[in-house]
Amino acid sequence: MDAFDVTILGCSSATPAFGRFPTSQLVHIAGRFLLVDCGEGAQMQLRRFSIKFQRINHIFISHLHGDHFLGLSGFLSSLHLLGRTDPIHIYGEDVLLDIINTTNKHSRSILQYPVVFHPLEFDKSKLLFEDEKLTVTTIPLKHSIPCCGFLFTEKPRPRKLIKEEIEKYAVPVDQMEKLKAGEDFITVDGKKIANDTLTLPSLPPRQYAYCSDTVYDEEIIPLISKSDLLYHESTFMEDMRDRAKQTMHSTAKDAANIAKKAEVGKLILGHFSARYKDLAPLLAEAKEVFAETYLAEEGKKVSL
Amino acid sequence: MDAFDVTILGCSSATPAFGRFPTSQLVHIAGRFLLVDCGEGAQMQLRRFSIKFQRINHIFISHLHGDHFLGLSGFLSSLHLLGRTDPIHIYGEDVLLDIINTTNKHSRSILQYPVVFHPLEFDKSKLLFEDEKLTVTTIPLKHSIPCCGFLFTEKPRPRKLIKEEIEKYAVPVDQMEKLKAGEDFITVDGKKIANDTLTLPSLPPRQYAYCSDTVYDEEIIPLISKSDLLYHESTFMEDMRDRAKQTMHSTAKDAANIAKKAEVGKLILGHFSARYKDLAPLLAEAKEVFAETYLAEEGKKVSL
Repeated sequence: MDAFDVTILGCSSATPAFGRFPTSQLVHIAGRFLLVDCGEGAQMQLRRFSIKFQRINHIFISHLHGDHFLGLSGFLSSLHLLGRTDPIHIYGEDVLLDIINTTNKHSRSILQYPVVFHPLEFDKSKLLFEDEKLTVTTIPLKHSIPCCGFLFTEKPRPRKLIKEEIEKYAVPVDQMEKLKAGEDFITVDGKKIANDTLTLPSLPPRQYAYCSDTVYDEEIIPLISKSDLLYHESTFMEDMRDRAKQTMHSTAKDAANIAKKAEVGKLILGHFSARYKDLAPLLAEAKEVFAETYLAEEGKKVSL
Repeated sequence: MDAFDVTILGCSSATPAFGRFPTSQLVHIAGRFLLVDCGEGAQMQLRRFSIKFQRINHIFISHLHGDHFLGLSGFLSSLHLLGRTDPIHIYGEDVLLDIINTTNKHSRSILQYPVVFHPLEFDKSKLLFEDEKLTVTTIPLKHSIPCCGFLFTEKPRPRKLIKEEIEKYAVPVDQMEKLKAGEDFITVDGKKIANDTLTLPSLPPRQYAYCSDTVYDEEIIPLISKSDLLYHESTFMEDMRDRAKQTMHSTAKDAANIAKKAEVGKLILGHFSARYKDLAPLLAEAKEVFAETYLAEEGKKVSL
């Protein structure tokens, strides 16, 4: 089975505290390494957790609050200094390119590899990336500035061949990929053998929903419904509900309610306010609503 | 005696490695906290070493290579979020302001405290800051882009009163500051008592010279001569002399030669290339020329 895992690089909200870094994650799906947000220090965290920089080809920036992108220029510079020549794809609000270019111009930095910039639209869910293993689509979020989450969805996986049946019907090797894709088999004498005689259903495609900064918003539920894993911000607890509303953030209970209503497999809480040294109360608040809740933590790797 | 110390926040060159952060230091002189360069992650290092953000009123940026300033936007944002209202003074190349403003504009960040920007000139040594305790002047450096170091010099300290003599001549309290400043004393019957009868000489003013990124350049020697402490970059060792020349950096031996010729008290090496995991060979190379050499290290505090 292909790898599909998420490594937390930073889980702090606006200002770093208690050793927690600003938001950044590495999503790894079948050999694709995707950097999701890139807060200050993301490159130090990649080093710390021994993740090879040059494996990353795609960077997704949910919005332009500093705690989600201020590590980008340093990371791009390091890729250059380490000899990169392959293109890197960056997905973000259009004006992010102005920040990158202004910084590089005044640093007199000319990156020796191409930056392919993909401006995001925030009004509805869009497909950003697709290959034979996965798709990445946006999740429109409601925050104080244009913001979206990202949905990482595995492509349907091949059906499993039933060895004894394959042998019994003498299926030629060149037909096997078609069987895995769900086609029926026609024998040399023209007889049709139904696909489900020869194969077992594949496991359902896995899905990870990343919701960076958002108010409580049930409109996202259809998009993230039944995801195996949901990361949902929980900057505050319920006793700070007014502050959450004012700053367009969520509470731990909000995140749990979304997880419950979307019937996801697991919930990871993150984007913790610097007011919380101890995160156990946030976890407890969410678990009252949704038992399968976990705390984000620098270096934590969650496999789907 | 007033405090005068330097805390290393980061000592890596262009790309962070082996837990070493990009360049940043905190200079503390008699209650003034000065941030000197502000590489990515400087604010995390301040947190790590329990240094209060809001005590810092002045930030000096030697040049606009990313490893010396990419932590600035994050730090300014945190000051804002932590409720700062006092002005902050930033000294840097004029275009640094364009980077700060572009980043803030696209982040929709409006800092609630004033940023007072002081553009640097790089052609000759200039006075940047002066108060009753210290002066800060630039040290023009030769690097691939406009760059300067900074010289932190204590103001002449007061002479020490000799208690017995003060009592003997019945010096009134309101005359004591004049004596400390070096003036003679006139008794009520008009007799002049020489200052050095009543006071002992003060200790000489202390001085710290910070030379961030530079080729080997003897022109700086008169400026930094006899400083108590010199920080001088040593990106490479002698076996990489060609690379040092090409990138306009120094070797450990270069730094030691400058320290020796300038007759400084102590030398701190820093700005280490990511090629060196073990820094002991750099220290050994420098110590052959200048015995009082030490390695920069995250969290190290050197008192003058």
